[in-house]
Amino acid sequence: MIKVETKYALLQEDLLSYQEEVNRIHEMIDNKTGKGNDFLGWVDWPDTYDKEEFERIIEVSEEVKANADVLLVCGIGGSYLGARSAIEMMNGLYPQRKPEIIFIGNTFSSTYLKQVCDYIKDKSFYVNVISKSGTTTETSIAFRFLKNMVEEKYGEEASQRIIATTDKARGTLKALAAQKGYRTFVIPDDIGGRYSVFTAVGLLPIACAGVDIRELMRGSKAAMDDFRNPDLHVNSAYQYAVLRRMMEKQGKSAEMLVTYDLSMTMITEWWKQLFGESEGKEGKGILPTSGTFSTDLHSLGQFVQEGKKMLFETLLLVEKPMLDMTFPTDDENLDNMNYLSGKSIDWVNKMACLGTLEAHVEQGNVPNIVLTLEDNSAYSYGYMIYFFFKACAMSCYMLDINPFNQPGVEVYKKNMFRLLGKE
Amino acid sequence: MIKVETKYALLQEDLLSYQEEVNRIHEMIDNKTGKGNDFLGWVDWPDTYDKEEFERIIEVSEEVKANADVLLVCGIGGSYLGARSAIEMMNGLYPQRKPEIIFIGNTFSSTYLKQVCDYIKDKSFYVNVISKSGTTTETSIAFRFLKNMVEEKYGEEASQRIIATTDKARGTLKALAAQKGYRTFVIPDDIGGRYSVFTAVGLLPIACAGVDIRELMRGSKAAMDDFRNPDLHVNSAYQYAVLRRMMEKQGKSAEMLVTYDLSMTMITEWWKQLFGESEGKEGKGILPTSGTFSTDLHSLGQFVQEGKKMLFETLLLVEKPMLDMTFPTDDENLDNMNYLSGKSIDWVNKMACLGTLEAHVEQGNVPNIVLTLEDNSAYSYGYMIYFFFKACAMSCYMLDINPFNQPGVEVYKKNMFRLLGKE
Repeated sequence: MIKVETKYALLQEDLLSYQEEVNRIHEMIDNKTGKGNDFLGWVDWPDTYDKEEFERIIEVSEEVKANADVLLVCGIGGSYLGARSAIEMMNGLYPQRKPEIIFIGNTFSSTYLKQVCDYIKDKSFYVNVISKSGTTTETSIAFRFLKNMVEEKYGEEASQRIIATTDKARGTLKALAAQKGYRTFVIPDDIGGRYSVFTAVGLLPIACAGVDIRELMRGSKAAMDDFRNPDLHVNSAYQYAVLRRMMEKQGKSAEMLVTYDLSMTMITEWWKQLFGESEGKEGKGILPTSGTFSTDLHSLGQFVQEGKKMLFETLLLVEKPMLDMTFPTDDENLDNMNYLSGKSIDWVNKMACLGTLEAHVEQGNVPNIVLTLEDNSAYSYGYMIYFFFKACAMSCYMLDINPFNQPGVEVYKKNMFRLLGKE
Repeated sequence: MIKVETKYALLQEDLLSYQEEVNRIHEMIDNKTGKGNDFLGWVDWPDTYDKEEFERIIEVSEEVKANADVLLVCGIGGSYLGARSAIEMMNGLYPQRKPEIIFIGNTFSSTYLKQVCDYIKDKSFYVNVISKSGTTTETSIAFRFLKNMVEEKYGEEASQRIIATTDKARGTLKALAAQKGYRTFVIPDDIGGRYSVFTAVGLLPIACAGVDIRELMRGSKAAMDDFRNPDLHVNSAYQYAVLRRMMEKQGKSAEMLVTYDLSMTMITEWWKQLFGESEGKEGKGILPTSGTFSTDLHSLGQFVQEGKKMLFETLLLVEKPMLDMTFPTDDENLDNMNYLSGKSIDWVNKMACLGTLEAHVEQGNVPNIVLTLEDNSAYSYGYMIYFFFKACAMSCYMLDINPFNQPGVEVYKKNMFRLLGKE
């Protein structure tokens, strides 16, 4: 389901020589014996997820779709990037369907907060607030404004308009939801934020956007089954994991994840969190960067082609586009573009990709790993996400790093709380 | 107007020791004697720009504002990033004003093209097509679709609905515009794409978005005057330029431009083109990356704090936000957030910034250069852009690189044209 092509990767050693190390780490992942193993709930989640809750997610999403102009998803980090990237990948950037999904609670920008509040005030809206503890500062600030707006606008019906995704039993948000009578969904204890998109954290907003989440989970299950075999001849997730480490050995300190569709840009942002936050520890890791081509060829292309040789690229390609168009012919041909008459725009995109691959690899000497996905369906999305989950765990364990904690994120928070005067 | 703060930059040498080198290069820039000097038209542009054309831009923008639901800006690279970043910085992401500005012609994505065409078809729209030669492939493809739509929808009035920004005399688009009777604006010969935002390329879309472009040019003029003095005690553009080279000497291979407002994210994308495309040559340059905090602290923060020590950060801060809100008190205080009651959200944002600065510099040992801008006004925007222009020229000449060409961007195009069968 995901092909990994290495012929553009300019490899200096044999991928298969890592099989023994891969086997050893594979056991640590699947038997949950490695560092951070209390956060390995995602490994068998496509089998073990709560089926009753899943049906409730679909039920609530039907209600939201029927009644809301806007769904406000209030969360940050893993409680933001998973859902947004999924929705953009599957619906595109101008979907023309209701509800419109707006992400909030992911910033301290007063301008953004005020503009969104003004934008929604005369619309019918629901709020999905997402926080494990209920103490995430960005999210709590936005949520207090939204809660006030909902209560003012909907009165008695307010509790129906707010849905909380939070800890199953404890925490500030759980208590608030119980007191106010909100419907709640669960963030499991053994799945961290950046691994949470297959839980209610991601699934509720994604379902509200009209995506078939049964298909999505079916895709994740297929990937889970496929990647139980650690054989590097067939396990594409482990191939990608090992290739990243090989690139690092070849002196590359930054990875640019490149897509060829603007609707995939947020997938690259989600991926930055997954790899950056999992791997950036103990002075180690590959800097995750991104580009959406051909758009960014006109900004970052020059650096990739001829700048400092510190980068490798990973292409994330989608074979079949969501929508396509045929280039029309023009009798006058004043723009001299008739050489493309009758060609599909997606074909042109693929030729741009091939031409760039050749330019960067052959002329630019920049290694490229090529990942190919069949389409942008919910099934393919589910498969791809699990692929990255497992690749990331393998890649981090190869560096002897705990992939599942994020001690560095707490440092700024501690300083900030002191400055804010929080007890 | 732009303050540069170095106390968090962990400097190992004296900035002022570069004065002699700076003086030498300053002469090359202001007297137009350096490499690529045929593209130094931007240096005195705030004085020399065509005042008659400027009035026509304002006139046309009034017509567009009065008649259009949507303005489609059809361009790529410098014909896209300048206008978009300016409009988002000054209007925010949910401006609730007409016309809506949509960027197109900046991608080969068939999904994006089809969705935008569907989105606009029942709306009143104008098209501003921007290309020096008229042969930019992404732009020409989108424009043929848009031209057909305009002609079908507006019939005789079509020529009024399309505005071309292109070469003053030559090229495919100039000829097409003449034949069809479009109004045209000029892309000067001596100003490259990434330096073009003060020309009609940027000014027309920016004016259509309701920004006061007289103020914008007044800001650029003030910066031009200020930066004619190369003294490193006062020239903040040169301070920043030299600091970048000092960071490189300290072993930093990537720069992360960080803002604290989602409406500044596209400014970081514009900046990536300016620095990446100007500097990424001959195996040299600093990799330009970006983050919008606190949002991305929850994805990239861990890497900055504890990952590989390859990065320095440049903060681009705005003192006065466009909009602000006061955090309301809540009698129940179920969310435990009353410690912020009565505080402004922007103050919280600034404390987050300060806490992060401390975390990254003191605990993380990551150097930070801090640039501070007074507000997001058109004047400040104009000043800031000229600041970056001049800093970039200085920074590149310090590496002995031509800042104004982009030979590497042509490589993929050549391959692509072969694959597309273009003669």
